[in-house]
Amino acid sequence: MSLADAHPLIDALAALRPALHNRDFLLTWRQSDDDLRAVLFAAETLEILHRENVSTRVFDGGLAVSNFRDQSTRTRFSFAGAATLLGLSLQELDEARSQIAHGETVRETANMISFAAEVIGIRDDIFLGEGHAYMAEVAAAVDEGFREGVLPQRPAVINLQCDLDHPTQSMADLLHLQRTFGSLDALRGRKLAMTWAYSPSYGKPLSVPQGIIALMTRFGMNVVLAHPPGYDLVPETLEIAARHARDSGGSFARMHDMAEAFRDADIVYPKSWAPFRVMEERTRILRAGQRDKLAALEQQALANNACHKDWECSEEMMAMTANFPLQAEQAPGVRAEGRALYMHCLPADISGVSCPQGEVAASVFERYRLATYREASHKPFIIAAMILLTRFPDAAAVLKRIVQSPRPRR
Amino acid sequence: MSLADAHPLIDALAALRPALHNRDFLLTWRQSDDDLRAVLFAAETLEILHRENVSTRVFDGGLAVSNFRDQSTRTRFSFAGAATLLGLSLQELDEARSQIAHGETVRETANMISFAAEVIGIRDDIFLGEGHAYMAEVAAAVDEGFREGVLPQRPAVINLQCDLDHPTQSMADLLHLQRTFGSLDALRGRKLAMTWAYSPSYGKPLSVPQGIIALMTRFGMNVVLAHPPGYDLVPETLEIAARHARDSGGSFARMHDMAEAFRDADIVYPKSWAPFRVMEERTRILRAGQRDKLAALEQQALANNACHKDWECSEEMMAMTANFPLQAEQAPGVRAEGRALYMHCLPADISGVSCPQGEVAASVFERYRLATYREASHKPFIIAAMILLTRFPDAAAVLKRIVQSPRPRR
Amino acid sequence: MSLADAHPLIDALAALRPALHNRDFLLTWRQSDDDLRAVLFAAETLEILHRENVSTRVFDGGLAVSNFRDQSTRTRFSFAGAATLLGLSLQELDEARSQIAHGETVRETANMISFAAEVIGIRDDIFLGEGHAYMAEVAAAVDEGFREGVLPQRPAVINLQCDLDHPTQSMADLLHLQRTFGSLDALRGRKLAMTWAYSPSYGKPLSVPQGIIALMTRFGMNVVLAHPPGYDLVPETLEIAARHARDSGGSFARMHDMAEAFRDADIVYPKSWAPFRVMEERTRILRAGQRDKLAALEQQALANNACHKDWECSEEMMAMTANFPLQAEQAPGVRAEGRALYMHCLPADISGVSCPQGEVAASVFERYRLATYREASHKPFIIAAMILLTRFPDAAAVLKRIVQSPRPRR
Repeated sequence: MSLADAHPLIDALAALRPALHNRDFLLTWRQSDDDLRAVLFAAETLEILHRENVSTRVFDGGLAVSNFRDQSTRTRFSFAGAATLLGLSLQELDEARSQIAHGETVRETANMISFAAEVIGIRDDIFLGEGHAYMAEVAAAVDEGFREGVLPQRPAVINLQCDLDHPTQSMADLLHLQRTFGSLDALRGRKLAMTWAYSPSYGKPLSVPQGIIALMTRFGMNVVLAHPPGYDLVPETLEIAARHARDSGGSFARMHDMAEAFRDADIVYPKSWAPFRVMEERTRILRAGQRDKLAALEQQALANNACHKDWECSEEMMAMTANFPLQAEQAPGVRAEGRALYMHCLPADISGVSCPQGEVAASVFERYRLATYREASHKPFIIAAMILLTRFPDAAAVLKRIVQSPRPRR
Repeated sequence: MSLADAHPLIDALAALRPALHNRDFLLTWRQSDDDLRAVLFAAETLEILHRENVSTRVFDGGLAVSNFRDQSTRTRFSFAGAATLLGLSLQELDEARSQIAHGETVRETANMISFAAEVIGIRDDIFLGEGHAYMAEVAAAVDEGFREGVLPQRPAVINLQCDLDHPTQSMADLLHLQRTFGSLDALRGRKLAMTWAYSPSYGKPLSVPQGIIALMTRFGMNVVLAHPPGYDLVPETLEIAARHARDSGGSFARMHDMAEAFRDADIVYPKSWAPFRVMEERTRILRAGQRDKLAALEQQALANNACHKDWECSEEMMAMTANFPLQAEQAPGVRAEGRALYMHCLPADISGVSCPQGEVAASVFERYRLATYREASHKPFIIAAMILLTRFPDAAAVLKRIVQSPRPRR
Repeated sequence: MSLADAHPLIDALAALRPALHNRDFLLTWRQSDDDLRAVLFAAETLEILHRENVSTRVFDGGLAVSNFRDQSTRTRFSFAGAATLLGLSLQELDEARSQIAHGETVRETANMISFAAEVIGIRDDIFLGEGHAYMAEVAAAVDEGFREGVLPQRPAVINLQCDLDHPTQSMADLLHLQRTFGSLDALRGRKLAMTWAYSPSYGKPLSVPQGIIALMTRFGMNVVLAHPPGYDLVPETLEIAARHARDSGGSFARMHDMAEAFRDADIVYPKSWAPFRVMEERTRILRAGQRDKLAALEQQALANNACHKDWECSEEMMAMTANFPLQAEQAPGVRAEGRALYMHCLPADISGVSCPQGEVAASVFERYRLATYREASHKPFIIAAMILLTRFPDAAAVLKRIVQSPRPRR
């Protein structure tokens, strides 16, 4: 890879018509194909610039505000990395230490944190029906603030995981697929199995499987969603996946059999999640303040999970997948001999490592471990690309200027 | 507004003789008129530069240390915004995670956090008699450290709210008034009603009303302080307001009638606070470690508050205020038809919105909501102006250089 | 001091052969003499540049990650200061708010936080046998990540205090000694007394005394370690100190008598620590989850401490130390009349100030107070030097470029 490799990417980006400037990135299915491709091209360019030690500081001051309403390591650091590489200062909105409890409205807070803000990244994935709504409310508030002259600039709201989608994850995953298979076109006709997997924990969000089926069906892939009966996703996302598959010439199928999903799959994404209805019930209980009922719900959910310990990404499961015809240089970390690409958003529940029995066998995970790290490595650049495209009217021109007179970052 | 508008402001700044370099900003009444005007001119200039996308990064590295001993959202983000726009990195002194409990003195800590610090912003408003004293102790410590060669530079201490004053708030409020009425001179003879208002909460600090009466009396305004009997402020601040009024040709009056205060007022600032004597008693109890007595004190204070629910900024109250002869372009967010300018430091207790009954009627607040956001929007620039004036011997020259060869921030 | 003073330091640095590039700084005794001298020369140069208001921003974006597994004020701010002065953004890995509890491995986390990281600073000093091991594990993980192409750069791991060593402290102390006595050579033959001192607290780490005896014996000093019977250090560090003394022509002696240690000492470093065996037992108890046994252990340890209240750095003790023939300009803060240099890593337990009786008499501490602040002032620059030397193949060339075309920092 060299700096010259950035030129065709920037040219390709310049040929697109993304409509992201002064907008947000909340749900991939609300974005046009050009928007998505623009994010990929910009992210790839930023990765090359970073590897070639070229500074990508396009801001000379300004805040990148994060609001994590749930735990996070990798997304937190990805957002922080994107901010510093673009020249923004990170400032976390820690609701426990703020006056938000004192009766401040979302509309007001959104403006109060935005006088110097270029981007607001939000994770809000705990309650079904709330995360996306909260982000949309923040976006509407900064829209009004900018329109009415309160805010000198209109910060972009970026979804760092909500109840419906996890776009920085799914877009990083898509870049990983594109890099591994050679191009977006090469994904056409590939079989991707997004499957539930057993975990000894409870209440894992639905946003990753929902985001994956909604995004990957747009690129002509044959996407299979498999889970035990009852472990349904939010219905709206199933409809979106089906529609995308129809439109793209791919397919979308649902089944309750992990082995069938894995059969001849080119890509497998085995991951635990909580059933949609459990998450709904949990949201209802928490809203009603019935914390005593939470323990009972959790126990029942864990007992249900335990009926499906055979949903493990074992060597036997992997043996049924398709031949994976990769050159070493295409996927240097993958040492599989002719088997599907294993993907995970991390951290995975690894049998015998992080738990007695979990989502994936230790030997399988270890073989793909570095590949999953590489998958994760795209996220800071995906986020930086989203910031670039939302905050600059012509991101291609900005990147071209950087490549034409590169300054060393270090 | 354009970049050209910055020139007369910088010229006006250059004509002043502020004495802020290598000093602190703790109490407005310890600062000269030139100091205050310099902060306003510099803040306005920084606002124009920011809106015109001109970088104001005057530091190439260095720490802006914050020490919040009480909750904060808007001041926290204002300080963070000021820091990043000037090129400083924010570092919070979180006393819970530090070794301060291990017997470290204020004098020592102040030096230990300052080897790379340009500014230390402190909020300490919980205990009467302590906040300002703490800030003065920190200032004396960095004075000694700088004089004795321990510190390579002398960080400015900036009061982000103490028991006596809240200068970044009151100065932002003053800039809001100047912007709304056209000039500082236009404030002369205006009636400003700083009034108590009912809130279902307890223990709100006194620093905002104290800061407002002490500052606004300096500009020839007719300032009225109104509250129910017993809700007194710290006596020292009343004396200061009275003296300022005498010196400026304005007036300062105290009364126990909200309606009388509102009558013909050009500006109203209805806001809850705790009685001075309750805050004193609370400080005494906390110092004595008698936490069991706190609940009783709180109950009694809330019961007292409840006797004054009629102290609400209602439509009826607003109807008594003066005609407010503003052009739309002067105050684009104010849609009042000929009534006083409503001000608040936010968050306000809004009847029927954030509480059943509170400081202000929902319809009144909604009419001025965007105006209060605009009022708050000055704070990052007021803080940045204070940093600029305390850390550079000739802030006007620094701003002139920026305007003469502007670099884009984005 | 002027910018010209930097030239001989940079020339001296250029003449060394440090092997720090793309490596870590974990234990001083694993580093060559050239490594240590390079850190001192680079730190002194950075101090001059900072005092002369020259920007040392050598990075244009990038993360400095910190991971504090124990409380910290001065090291936290030193690390933050180093980061901002070099142009890096600080990002704390707060394990409580991360997903690390969810079964994520150290190896994985190390990579996930490093996509944009240039340095990872870690404090992990609570458990014997764990801190250094953890840092080594993080270092191995980023080694693999960089080698396998997961990470675009190889962040340096810097020990901000572990169970064995506290190199940023001991190197800052060494720079303080060099500055005070005029040169490293001038330390040859000096007597340094590293002694235990009484403290009414329990469980203070061993890393400072261990780091001091292991480092100072390398420079031909006569190092004496004194403590009450039973207050032993980790045996490995004693062996290292003895070996270093043999190799350097200095000496290393152990004794149980504070007065004998102080006699004719040129430098005294009286500081409390917990006995090695108590720390071992504490680690065992905590690992076994026997939190009920902790209180008993603590009580017994405090009772043992209380038998040695005479281990105080009193005026009587200081009176036995050597004549300290310093010029005022060499040590402007030391107002001692011909007595040893008192050192402390701070905060000290000061009798009658921070506790009824402690490590040092108030009058002794006050006389050296500013000198201890100056001692601490080197730490940000020591850390910055470590970052510079680990992240740039030719730090001397980098510093030379800065000195030749200096940009003002402010």
